[in-house]
This record gives sequence, structure tokens and C-alpha cells, in this order.
Amino acid sequence: MIKTIVLKSRPEGKPSISDFEFLEDDAELSIKDGELLLETTYVSVDPYLRGRMSDAKSYTPPFQLNKPIHSGVIAKVLESKNKKFEAGDYVSGMLDWKTKQISTGEGLLKVDASKAPLSAYLGILGMTGLTAYTGLTQIGKPKAGETLVVSGAAGAVGSVVGQIGKILGLRVIGIAGSDEKVELLKTKFGFDAGINYNTTENMTAAIAEAAPNGVDIYYDNVGGPISDAVFFNINQFARLVICGSISVYNNTEIPKSISVQPFLIKNSALMQGFIVSNYEVIFPEAMKHLSTWLAEDKLTYTETIVQGFDNIPNAFMDLFEGKNKGKMVVKM
Amino acid sequence: MIKTIVLKSRPEGKPSISDFEFLEDDAELSIKDGELLLETTYVSVDPYLRGRMSDAKSYTPPFQLNKPIHSGVIAKVLESKNKKFEAGDYVSGMLDWKTKQISTGEGLLKVDASKAPLSAYLGILGMTGLTAYTGLTQIGKPKAGETLVVSGAAGAVGSVVGQIGKILGLRVIGIAGSDEKVELLKTKFGFDAGINYNTTENMTAAIAEAAPNGVDIYYDNVGGPISDAVFFNINQFARLVICGSISVYNNTEIPKSISVQPFLIKNSALMQGFIVSNYEVIFPEAMKHLSTWLAEDKLTYTETIVQGFDNIPNAFMDLFEGKNKGKMVVKM
Repeated sequence: MIKTIVLKSRPEGKPSISDFEFLEDDAELSIKDGELLLETTYVSVDPYLRGRMSDAKSYTPPFQLNKPIHSGVIAKVLESKNKKFEAGDYVSGMLDWKTKQISTGEGLLKVDASKAPLSAYLGILGMTGLTAYTGLTQIGKPKAGETLVVSGAAGAVGSVVGQIGKILGLRVIGIAGSDEKVELLKTKFGFDAGINYNTTENMTAAIAEAAPNGVDIYYDNVGGPISDAVFFNINQFARLVICGSISVYNNTEIPKSISVQPFLIKNSALMQGFIVSNYEVIFPEAMKHLSTWLAEDKLTYTETIVQGFDNIPNAFMDLFEGKNKGKMVVKM
Repeated sequence: MIKTIVLKSRPEGKPSISDFEFLEDDAELSIKDGELLLETTYVSVDPYLRGRMSDAKSYTPPFQLNKPIHSGVIAKVLESKNKKFEAGDYVSGMLDWKTKQISTGEGLLKVDASKAPLSAYLGILGMTGLTAYTGLTQIGKPKAGETLVVSGAAGAVGSVVGQIGKILGLRVIGIAGSDEKVELLKTKFGFDAGINYNTTENMTAAIAEAAPNGVDIYYDNVGGPISDAVFFNINQFARLVICGSISVYNNTEIPKSISVQPFLIKNSALMQGFIVSNYEVIFPEAMKHLSTWLAEDKLTYTETIVQGFDNIPNAFMDLFEGKNKGKMVVKM
């Protein structure tokens, strides 16, 4: 029996379980030449999926109603009529929320279970790690000795950004929302300094103190007032990597911030938004570095693993309650 | 007698005549080996000078109190003990607001009065033209068929940006502050469309109508609410060239705008502040194109010429009232 999760209705505000529908199907799946039969092993749930559940105009089409949702998935090849893969291989790719499915192999990458836990290929060796690596290197263009500030620093992407920053010789300052998280940044992830935005009255001054030479790179996962405070501390030719804006995602009115333009002009600074798929051409380079650093224990990560296909929607919804630590994945 | 204009006090908000002081001096100027005696012919007044009158941290040191202000100047060589120049030459460079002064020749360029009017070397063949060309080509990276929006479009830089945009095969939309200016954009400068922000109620809708395929490049001279309206219309991979923010230069409080970060992320868009001197390496290429286009009548320009050294501060202050059409220069 094959289970599928489809989008039943577009969430209004916070998603609820009634927005999802479980389907079951007894049909036999048989593959044609060039195809693969896949069995899902791990499913990645990520905040960005919320955007695709809405039908607002965007560069990616929204999920269709009554069609399977898809996200990053690790699957086992049960059967192959495609020369690039054989039965027993594990692959990662954007796949449907189904227990079993057929693929042409397009967009799938083989993953090596002997080199890292399979779930890592959805996190530090998957989209999370690639997002951190590509944003920091391709937009941030770090030079050893520079200062990097990371917001959402204890999150899945932020914690990897900070660690890569240290590997590349930067002074790294993380901004997070609790003393426990700030402690984690310094002890587990090797950040030079951390700032708890919930207990810091003057963020501009706190950043200035933590970054006595000013801020050369800002890797932004949150937007809002935290980012405003960073602008007062940027250096000439600063690069601002705009990865996420979670602090304003739930606003119902267009949020206001300081006018960034005068800061950009005064400092000849660059600000660039991105999604990881813009940088597919450097994924091989990124994967090589990430897997080497992981093997050398220069990178570490946390993940929250939820058990059971039926729990995918709950795991997804828990992201918005902050119930995850690091990367959230669902194991079959 | 030599006249000098010094910065008497740092303006708070809008500059006023009391921020400037006129000095007179009867001393004879005598030059040493390697030096030149210069007589000022034209003085350029530009919005960016407002920034240098404040003592906020910036990439360039602020003007010093009770010292001469300086800006782009065309001067005649009265006397030369420098082999590179001879009496009768005209030169351009960053020089003091003085009727006569001594220079070592450093940073001065000879200009050819037979090829273009002298004032043009402060405008379309000077910093204005270079600012337009470098910002549009190096940050805007235009591709034929794309849509360019220019704010401050009837200004010195904006009107050149739009014309270069047309030469490069773009659809060009200009935003300006009067019907007369909008008419000028379309008739004199060849813009495809113009929007009067002073009479347009819904700027977002007006830009959408003028740019049915969305906005690929935004060359921003003004910042503020006009720029906010542009953000709602940008395309994926849009480039926002942040050249000036005249709408907020005289603000005494930190101005607020929409949060641009979600727009940058959703569109993988780039926003970059710059000053023309970042691009010195392409000045030769830029000058070649600008002078060729000017000779071929593909570029035209307007200038507002104010008479008299004593009127330099007034001409500068008039910039913030939009009293200039095109480049504002003061003729001795």
C-alpha cells in the first residue's frame, strides 16, 4: 500500500492538520526503461514550504491543491531501469510526500550512507549546508580576518554559516533569541561572540562592541529590527546576504524598517537576496568542502528526527512553534 | 582679490546660507616648481556634497569646518611650472571653492574646449556621465529587452542613465516631480514612459502599468516612498543600483521605509550602493562611449547654469528644491 499526502486547502495564517489529506492506494507500481522505483526513507520539512502552500505570485509555482506536496527527500532505490542507479542505492532529491514513487532519475543525486548518516544529506550535506555555503561564499565573498554577523545563528542554516565563517578565518558573531542558544553558539559551534536579542536593549551598541572593526558580511536569516541594528555597523564594501526574513513572515501588513539606501550608498555596500537553487553550478564544490569538513570534525550539527510518515504534517507545523533543534526531518 | 567659500557650520536638516561663509584675501599667489596657478571657470554643485557637510562616519572624510568646500571644478591654467600643463589649458578636478588657487596638478585632467562646452566636463563628460554609465553597466548589467526604471529621471544623472538605457535596448521609464519634467523625459531624452510622482496617487500601480513586464533594473537617485513603490514591481534577479537618496538627505531622524528584505529574497534581487570612484578602472571605456554617443547625437543633456561665484551656496541649496533641470553648474 502506498501513502500520499496532498495539499487539501491553502492555509490561512498558521497551517493546520485539516490543510493536509492522506491518500492510500493499492496499485502496483511498475517502472519503464530509464525509470526508478523509490522508497522514501527521510523527508525534510522546512519553513519555506509554507510559502509554496500559498498562491501568491512567486518565482516558483505554488503547490497545487489535491496534488502531493514535495520537499527534500532521501529514498532507497528498490528497482532500477536507469543505468545511473542500481537497486540498493540511496538518493536525494525533491520528491513527493509518498511512501513509494517512480522517478526518471532527473534531479536525483546518489548519497553515500557510509560517509554520513542519511539524514545529514537533508541538512548539513543537503539544502541546509548548501544554503549556508553558497550564500556565504558567493554573495558574502569572505576574506580571512573580516567580521561576519549571522542572525538566526542557532538555526539550521545560521549555525552552519558561523562554522564555515570560522573555517574561513573570519571573526564570527551570532545573534539568537535565548541565553541557552547564545551559549550553544560559543561552546558547540565555535562563534567568537553571541548576542541575545531578547535581553539586549541597544542592539546597535551590542553589535558595535562585538565587532570592534565593523561588519564586513552580514548573513541575514531574520530581517526586522535586528537587521536594522546591523546596518549602523557595516563597513565600506560590506556584503549583506539576505537568506531569510522569518521575523516578518507572519506580518499581515507590509513591515517597515529603517531606509537602508543611505547606508548602502555611504558604504558602497551590497545586499542580495537568494535561494539556494540559483547556485546549482557550485553544488559539487560545496559538497566536497562540506563533506570534508564534516569528516574532519570541523563542522557539527543538530537535528530533530520525528518518526513516521503520518507525522510529516505535524513535524512541519511544529517548525512554527520552535519545537525543533536544528534541522527537522521525518524518518519512515 | 581671491574669494573663498568655507563651511561655517554643519547643516541640521536643510542647509541654509548661514552654514557658509565667504572670505576675501588680497595676498598674491606665487607658484613653485611643479605647481599651477588656476582660475576657476565652472563649479559643480551636487547632492552628494550634503553628506560631506555632516560629520557622520563615512567612506570619505567630512568637510572640515572653516576650511574651503571642494567639488568638481573646471579651471583655466593662468601660470604653470608643471611640465604636464601650460598656461591657457583648461583642467577638471576636485578643487576648492575659490576664485583662484594653486595646485600640484595631481588629480587634474586636461579638458578639450574644442570638443565639447567646458561645462559638459562637469556633467555628461564628467562625474555625471561616469556615474550614470558605471552604475548602469557595472551594477545594472543591462540586457537588451529588459525594463529600466530611473528615479530622479530629469536630474543630471537620471537623464543620462535613461538615454544610455535606450542606446542599450532597454524599455526605459522615468520618475520625476512635474509634468514638465515628464514631458522632457519623453520628448528630449527618449524615455518610453514617465511618471509624475507629485500627481500620481498610486505609484505602485502606475509603475506596474508603465512596466507591464516588471522591472529588471532600478537606477535609484531618490530613495524614500518612490523606491518603496518600485519594490512591488521588481522581477526575479532584478538589480537595484543605489546611486542617491536625495529624498532623505536632509532628514534629521533616521527615515523609515518598507522592509526590502522579503522583496529581495522572493526575487533573488540585488541592491548595491556605490560611488563613481569605485569604478575608476572603467573610466576610459566609459569616456570613450560617452564622447562617441555625444558626438553622434545619441546623447543629449540639459544643464542649469547659475552665474557668479557668490551664488554657489544658493545653487547648491536649490538642488533640494528640484529647481535644476539636469546638471547644475555655476559659471564665474
